[in-house]
Amino acid sequence: MALLVVGAVAFDSIRTPYGEAENILGGAATYFAVTASWFAPVRVVAVVGEDFGEEYFRVFQDRGVDTAGLVQAPGKTFRWSGEYVGDMNEARTLETHLNVFEQFAPKIPGLYLDTEFVFLGNIDPVLQLHVRRQLPRARLVALDSMNYWIKGKPEELKKALAEVDILVINETEARMLSGLSNLKKAAEVIRKMGPRTLVIKRGEHGVMLFSEGGIFSAPAFPLDEVHDPTGAGDSFGGGFMGHLAKAGEISDAQLRRAVIYGSVMASFAVEGFGLSRLLRLTPEEIEARYREFKNLTHFDV
Amino acid sequence: MALLVVGAVAFDSIRTPYGEAENILGGAATYFAVTASWFAPVRVVAVVGEDFGEEYFRVFQDRGVDTAGLVQAPGKTFRWSGEYVGDMNEARTLETHLNVFEQFAPKIPGLYLDTEFVFLGNIDPVLQLHVRRQLPRARLVALDSMNYWIKGKPEELKKALAEVDILVINETEARMLSGLSNLKKAAEVIRKMGPRTLVIKRGEHGVMLFSEGGIFSAPAFPLDEVHDPTGAGDSFGGGFMGHLAKAGEISDAQLRRAVIYGSVMASFAVEGFGLSRLLRLTPEEIEARYREFKNLTHFDV
Repeated sequence: MALLVVGAVAFDSIRTPYGEAENILGGAATYFAVTASWFAPVRVVAVVGEDFGEEYFRVFQDRGVDTAGLVQAPGKTFRWSGEYVGDMNEARTLETHLNVFEQFAPKIPGLYLDTEFVFLGNIDPVLQLHVRRQLPRARLVALDSMNYWIKGKPEELKKALAEVDILVINETEARMLSGLSNLKKAAEVIRKMGPRTLVIKRGEHGVMLFSEGGIFSAPAFPLDEVHDPTGAGDSFGGGFMGHLAKAGEISDAQLRRAVIYGSVMASFAVEGFGLSRLLRLTPEEIEARYREFKNLTHFDV
Repeated sequence: MALLVVGAVAFDSIRTPYGEAENILGGAATYFAVTASWFAPVRVVAVVGEDFGEEYFRVFQDRGVDTAGLVQAPGKTFRWSGEYVGDMNEARTLETHLNVFEQFAPKIPGLYLDTEFVFLGNIDPVLQLHVRRQLPRARLVALDSMNYWIKGKPEELKKALAEVDILVINETEARMLSGLSNLKKAAEVIRKMGPRTLVIKRGEHGVMLFSEGGIFSAPAFPLDEVHDPTGAGDSFGGGFMGHLAKAGEISDAQLRRAVIYGSVMASFAVEGFGLSRLLRLTPEEIEARYREFKNLTHFDV
């Protein structure tokens, strides 16, 4: 099944204790699309500037990602620069230039209107709802958001949440959105806002899934070294939704598998700078790490 | 198989957002012993004061715990008071009166010398080593420690670690002991100090086991309410060692099961004030929660 993602494509400048990179291809929709491309046909809806050369389109196309929705607009591409220090749990943003992204009005190409699996990346909830309503045949719609929208546009966000199936956010955002610090109680409140399935990302502490099938808790994959945390959460989303689109079925068992595939992809993402590790994967590596996750968590009854 | 614990028995005064209690029975060895008593015959080696009345001995005896090693000394019992605020992740100690515990010189009763499963609670590492050497027939010796000893007696602690099989500590302590922030690397360094099995407790983020069988990661049980976190770590230890003593076998599969039983018992511990929930359990409740843990973590390959 085809999987559509709408969100940001950017150029990132990143500094971590392991190195630095200037103006490399990044953005949430990019990480999501490249990651999901290992599972399903991906369609990306985003805006880039005139500085977005042929070679960057090719990164998507080489992974089989459909770029008909990747629109070039007058101006420059969204730029972000940040650094990670110490335990690298959080990025310190140095600069953000929205550029063409500031006027982003996502348009869904006609050929995409049949999309059944949709990921509404972390953008203005007004735009998220607008996109969602353009896709009446969507069987599964997931939404990502952040503290900026939870604080700044709570009513708009709640309207969007009322029309999606899955919300993917991090721990702090779940607490902020629900007003509750206990995650189990927070999940109950959030699931009443609309999304019957809630995925809470906890960084190095893994992921929790709250759905009709109860609670599922998965650890993060223990790594010797994290080279660059950029895009870990978006790669989780790509693996999660990619697996569901590939399976074409939304059962509790598939949601749990999707959480593990998301965690697998996030663990690969942080092993290299930018997209590097995600671009040079093999299906065998993905399956091997999935099995390692099983070994990491298995115990007998 | 019998399981011996050496450590602190105390009177605790506790305040949490859910209530408060004055001078209730507590201490690491108490939580450990009461918890482990649900799995195996327990022997406790500790010192109490003249204020430790018959009714407190009876708490242990009612759970079948052998109190021949619970020695009464002139003076008062160890007293601790603390409070938990906000997310209750850490206790704020208000007062500590070591009293008779200050001169604690654990003596192993002759009848205990055949003990095969031993838990060296968080006391001076010199005493831990002393106890360990009095028990030559011990098949499995686990040790608990804390930042106070890691900083204050690092050489003594390393000598004790060289002669034990399992170290049980929390995340911060593992980083302090190894000097490394990455837990996987920290575990490698610590396992070279002696204990072939390392259990890292991460509070609300669960537990990691590093052993010959690789890495095992278990989440904490999601609870609606944590009433009193006191003794959670010690109850983990009691369930963990209790299961191993009951199984009488130390395989990777049993170590993983032990981590889950430890997590089950810690989740019960925090549901009530002090020992209350741990004293009114049933074997059926323990097994039911073990199965809930399976449902919490299971996914298909």
